[in-house]
Amino acid sequence: MRTTVGIIGGGPAGLLLARLLYRAGIDCAVLESRTREYVEQRQRAGMLEQGTVDALHEAGAADRLDTEGLVHHGIELRFAGERHRIDFPALTGGRTVTIYAQTEIVKDLVALQLADGPPLLFEAEALSVEKPESEQPVVRFRHEGRERTLACDWVVGCDGFHGIARDAFPAAGSRTYAHDYPYSWLGILADVPPSCDELIYARGERGFALHSMRSPSVSRLYLQVPNGTDPGDWPDDRIWDELAARFAIDADWTLGRGPVTAKSVTPMRSHVHEPMRHGRLLLAGDAAHIVPPTGAKGLNLAVSDVRLLARALTGLYGTGSTQLLDRYSELCLARVWQATRFSDDMTRMLHAQPNGDAFENRMQLARLRRITASRHAAAELAAHYTGLPLPL
Amino acid sequence: MRTTVGIIGGGPAGLLLARLLYRAGIDCAVLESRTREYVEQRQRAGMLEQGTVDALHEAGAADRLDTEGLVHHGIELRFAGERHRIDFPALTGGRTVTIYAQTEIVKDLVALQLADGPPLLFEAEALSVEKPESEQPVVRFRHEGRERTLACDWVVGCDGFHGIARDAFPAAGSRTYAHDYPYSWLGILADVPPSCDELIYARGERGFALHSMRSPSVSRLYLQVPNGTDPGDWPDDRIWDELAARFAIDADWTLGRGPVTAKSVTPMRSHVHEPMRHGRLLLAGDAAHIVPPTGAKGLNLAVSDVRLLARALTGLYGTGSTQLLDRYSELCLARVWQATRFSDDMTRMLHAQPNGDAFENRMQLARLRRITASRHAAAELAAHYTGLPLPL
Repeated sequence: MRTTVGIIGGGPAGLLLARLLYRAGIDCAVLESRTREYVEQRQRAGMLEQGTVDALHEAGAADRLDTEGLVHHGIELRFAGERHRIDFPALTGGRTVTIYAQTEIVKDLVALQLADGPPLLFEAEALSVEKPESEQPVVRFRHEGRERTLACDWVVGCDGFHGIARDAFPAAGSRTYAHDYPYSWLGILADVPPSCDELIYARGERGFALHSMRSPSVSRLYLQVPNGTDPGDWPDDRIWDELAARFAIDADWTLGRGPVTAKSVTPMRSHVHEPMRHGRLLLAGDAAHIVPPTGAKGLNLAVSDVRLLARALTGLYGTGSTQLLDRYSELCLARVWQATRFSDDMTRMLHAQPNGDAFENRMQLARLRRITASRHAAAELAAHYTGLPLPL
Repeated sequence: MRTTVGIIGGGPAGLLLARLLYRAGIDCAVLESRTREYVEQRQRAGMLEQGTVDALHEAGAADRLDTEGLVHHGIELRFAGERHRIDFPALTGGRTVTIYAQTEIVKDLVALQLADGPPLLFEAEALSVEKPESEQPVVRFRHEGRERTLACDWVVGCDGFHGIARDAFPAAGSRTYAHDYPYSWLGILADVPPSCDELIYARGERGFALHSMRSPSVSRLYLQVPNGTDPGDWPDDRIWDELAARFAIDADWTLGRGPVTAKSVTPMRSHVHEPMRHGRLLLAGDAAHIVPPTGAKGLNLAVSDVRLLARALTGLYGTGSTQLLDRYSELCLARVWQATRFSDDMTRMLHAQPNGDAFENRMQLARLRRITASRHAAAELAAHYTGLPLPL
């Protein structure tokens, strides 16, 4: 097999890149190691920055998003028995975010891709990227029981944190920055209308809790739990009781309960790989960087990588200019580090300290109080949450 | 002896309170354990918020400050080979700060106090505060070789971190929040004109450095050093070489060197005691809270405590209202926690990690870059640096 741009990974990053390249008339092929059913059911993020919505429009993949997406104008911070709303449009000159689950984005992109191609191979397991320094890199992969190769002009690794694309970067000149947080999230999906119109970020001595949603009838809720927590130790009633206790604020507010349809524990981690390009191999999304989910930045960062990369490649094949491609790593990483810092700040501000550090608890409260007291501090949160502009 | 307000400690907090009370016609007496010479030579801060300058005017102690104080309109952040100016008036609606050394403030206040009283006793060592819960608390102290008592309506502890006033708070109901930082500052005074018009905060892999000044002919410089550093290990040449390396930026800028007249090592610590009032005993300044010096907040917090307290006491003796006195601790602490958080942020953003944590280094750089890229982030720094308003 041969193509212009070989894309490893059929998650939202890889699929979106394929659509953007397809519409620009650039050949590509997507290799996804899992089945279609698996990638369409994988529960992930659901909070889209305006730029992410724009990119899905650009890709012609926004029909259902436009109908079913829920536009949100703010979030609520709940702490010390108080509720404070952060008003995004007022603080950012009109910007909003949109709730639309990653699973739905993937379904929309897969359907388009299978309808009018470029090739999308499921159960095609990438094994290695060969000769990324050359003019003609090759992806070795396993499909239908045998080893095959995909010869490309460019290879893009959209294969996530556990992917193989990163392995083709030479150790000398590459660097990984990582931080593991001392807590995890227990997340549930539940068939119950959300008990709020906007997301609630709740900080308290029992630990952090987040009330999110997927649709007007499906709630998504998270609890801070210790690392190594077994979801089996959390029967549904225990989860609902703990959520109710962490969100408790006054007699007027109650948490609706319903059947739990999914339950999982996710560790909290920051991880950045530098650089994001080696020769003709480029990384995008989780393959290059992971943020803790507190800032809702993971999917959005993947999409902004892909937007930059699509522009860089269309620039190359349109005008012959390598200018954007040459700056791809640098431009992405500037934005990645800001999102990583914002996610780190949000994470540290909202989670209870496992070691009970009383000074750090007071620092968290002071930080939250400042956000609710200072327009500049609130505007900084809103600017990051709704998404920094693409550096173009 | 008997007085209305007994003040323990003749540093800037105690002396300023005495002047403000004197001008309001309220009797007071100040007990200072050291000699006049000692307190007038004690090297401390020198960066005054506008509110601190206002308080010295209110106290009638600003004649020399008005002549000799250097008004500053910003600071410079120096990192990653770049220089960035933070313009205070532009970011805060016109606010500035003033360089005038704490030693000079103390000299001015001592001179006024000795000229027209109330009593200021040097070498009067406070031993304990008795019966703070009663209507008539008593300060026991040693003066001229014998033990004496000062009976008061109110006792104010301005006796610093190592003072005895805090000891009279009952353990039940009091709480201390503390954090020790894993580095110290080696500070020097030098007879050389400053090599800059405004303060330079420099971050780099060799460690943090700060270029400050006391006057047009006296520089004040600091180096981050490991905890436990012996100043004797730092001959003057080594200090100048290290300062020059940390401030190095381009061929146009050089660090002027001159005779070092003072040298000392200070650990970096955050410390807050809650509450700041117990019965008729009140704390102000370092007796209640210590911040690391990176945010230039220590002296300014002491002055804002004292301004609040002077208004509370003049309110009581003027109109009989206890409203401000009853809220003294709460109002001070809200401001104290914000200043502690700001000082903690500045400290963590600018100091090299002794453990070399590469992720944390990138977080520091991302934070600095955001301050230089976002008006909101810069305005937050400027608002805290020039001083949050008094909560009145």
